Amino acid sequence: MEPELIDALSLAQELIRAPSVTPDSGGAIGVLGDALRRLGFDVIDLPFGDGAERTPNLFARLGLSGPHLCFAGHTDVVPPGIEGWTSGPFDAAVRSDVLYGRGACDMKGGIAAFVSAVARHLGGGRPLNGSISLLITGDEEGPATYGTVKVLEWMAANGQIPDFCVVGEPTNPDHMGDVIKIGRRGSLNARIVVHGVQGHVAYPQRADNPIHRLMAILSDLTAHPLDKGSEWFEPSSVQVTSVDVGNDATNVIPGRASARLNIRFNDRHTGRDLAHWITETVRARAPGAEIDIRVSGEAFLTPPSPQLGMLVEAVEEVTGRPPRLDTGGGTSDARFISRYCPVAEFGLVGASMHKVNEHVPVADLRALTDIYAAFIERLMG
Amino acid sequence: MEPELIDALSLAQELIRAPSVTPDSGGAIGVLGDALRRLGFDVIDLPFGDGAERTPNLFARLGLSGPHLCFAGHTDVVPPGIEGWTSGPFDAAVRSDVLYGRGACDMKGGIAAFVSAVARHLGGGRPLNGSISLLITGDEEGPATYGTVKVLEWMAANGQIPDFCVVGEPTNPDHMGDVIKIGRRGSLNARIVVHGVQGHVAYPQRADNPIHRLMAILSDLTAHPLDKGSEWFEPSSVQVTSVDVGNDATNVIPGRASARLNIRFNDRHTGRDLAHWITETVRARAPGAEIDIRVSGEAFLTPPSPQLGMLVEAVEEVTGRPPRLDTGGGTSDARFISRYCPVAEFGLVGASMHKVNEHVPVADLRALTDIYAAFIERLMG
Repeated sequence: MEPELIDALSLAQELIRAPSVTPDSGGAIGVLGDALRRLGFDVIDLPFGDGAERTPNLFARLGLSGPHLCFAGHTDVVPPGIEGWTSGPFDAAVRSDVLYGRGACDMKGGIAAFVSAVARHLGGGRPLNGSISLLITGDEEGPATYGTVKVLEWMAANGQIPDFCVVGEPTNPDHMGDVIKIGRRGSLNARIVVHGVQGHVAYPQRADNPIHRLMAILSDLTAHPLDKGSEWFEPSSVQVTSVDVGNDATNVIPGRASARLNIRFNDRHTGRDLAHWITETVRARAPGAEIDIRVSGEAFLTPPSPQLGMLVEAVEEVTGRPPRLDTGGGTSDARFISRYCPVAEFGLVGASMHKVNEHVPVADLRALTDIYAAFIERLMG
Repeated sequence: MEPELIDALSLAQELIRAPSVTPDSGGAIGVLGDALRRLGFDVIDLPFGDGAERTPNLFARLGLSGPHLCFAGHTDVVPPGIEGWTSGPFDAAVRSDVLYGRGACDMKGGIAAFVSAVARHLGGGRPLNGSISLLITGDEEGPATYGTVKVLEWMAANGQIPDFCVVGEPTNPDHMGDVIKIGRRGSLNARIVVHGVQGHVAYPQRADNPIHRLMAILSDLTAHPLDKGSEWFEPSSVQVTSVDVGNDATNVIPGRASARLNIRFNDRHTGRDLAHWITETVRARAPGAEIDIRVSGEAFLTPPSPQLGMLVEAVEEVTGRPPRLDTGGGTSDARFISRYCPVAEFGLVGASMHKVNEHVPVADLRALTDIYAAFIERLMG
């Protein structure tokens, strides 16, 4: 069977018209599965979780040999909000060569561009010199418990870990080709509650001021930079985000003081090491303090490699400018994938993501399709 | 005219029965003025303030020569509250040799004991070898704006500043003769608000975390003890009483952080010097911070002197135990008097002051009368 050509704009519109606000599938994963089957992919539905937590996911693969390139992404979208949309958020209207709709850039447009690029690559009737897979979840914007993490476990158990993964998140701040993300800092949140002994300010020797202990702890934690940065990362940063006592009585030493802090940490640290350091630092000043630490993501980095080089070349070939390699910003599912294989993130322009009138210029969809196709050509042409 | 004897219990009852809850006079100052006139005092009513703020005060003096001993106190009382009184708070009932009523110990009983002591001293018909005055205000428990401060100004303007002043506040924690107060620490309250630049924790270089600046300020202010105490005082103490940010977003650096602190300071400092130190310390870390500093009282001390020695001897003569000289506890009008002359505080047992069923054993009233009489005898006998 000769694979048919798939148009990125048409597929993006079809995906947007399937209203897949997390956790509803809205039929979007089915639309994608059908398109992939038409291209010859083996498509496996991988729902995880039960009842209200049931999460639709899809893994699809074409070819068996290496190199194995995986495209990862999500079909779910954030709620559209109610007011302010010029056309319906699930209408996928095109006005003045711009496609409007929830998910246009984050990231149904990116998925459509990749599928279109694969179709173009296969269109010449050439045999695929490697294999291509897609890891698609229906819950990236929500708790993500039964999404990418579970699919990766399944892939590992079934010998489907790729050699390289591209996540199609909208990485470009302003213009197509601005930024490839090759890593992210890790993020840790801590809450510290110090208990003291309440008393009158006139008799401090009978009290134990928890604010003084907490100040000493926070000073210890922020006194010295954690590091000076590394080759691809900014220095790690400890930021105290709140301190709260709530004592209105000017003549009373309070019994309790709490603080919250966040650490954005680079590849010189792990969440575990930082949690240990925080705990030891707090215990030294306030042995009975409550400490609650949550690591929402480890730092990761995809160091320069031949595959990353090919992605950079593909971007430059299409846009005429070399992309910047960056590790800034927030978290994405790439943090999970990085535990299994090298991963880079590159997609559309994200300026309108999560906003009213989310949109993507049709020219950007075409350009991203060209870039993905050029990357596939370099990798397995 | 031969001065008549005045019984401390009878005068205390008469004063309690004049319900002088701040700011009402309730006739109490009039009762006292009448008693003093009967002893030969020149009595001057010194009301200050207008309208609702009008505050009754009294200055009375007997004799013109030195040494000039002044007794200072107040006829106003705190509200009795409604429930729990065994007899009416203004009934001045005596049961089992205990006098009950609002003001019994704080401090109508103390006033009555002093007037009775003066009457006894004059009762022998001896000429007074010096002079005795009373500075009585009707607003010590309230704002005190038009009370002792204004009477002192009037006394200074009229050549009536005494050589030594006794304030009749209930200084004894448990038993008659426990404690003479010879000074108090000063008290300063400060509120510091640091403004920064709000931002996302992932981009700390674009923000300015006000919590970090505030922590540095508070560390500077609390890092080292202000002093090691002085002969009669405990070390001064800086206590941070609250820190408040109220930022619930774990990924946001807040724009504002505030703290409150209190300093109880001894005679090695002045409120002015400490305010300057706080201001300079805050400005060095956060030039634009808001700083609000209020000094509610300076530290003062009446160092040992012949007059104080006589008061100590008088207490020991009556109780058989030497009193402890102390500078602890809260503030009283003595802080104002200390600007003009040496002042010590000695009165009844204060355990029931400001409480339901305020009371004083009649024996304590007699003992305090004996002590005041013994002191007057030593000073000008």
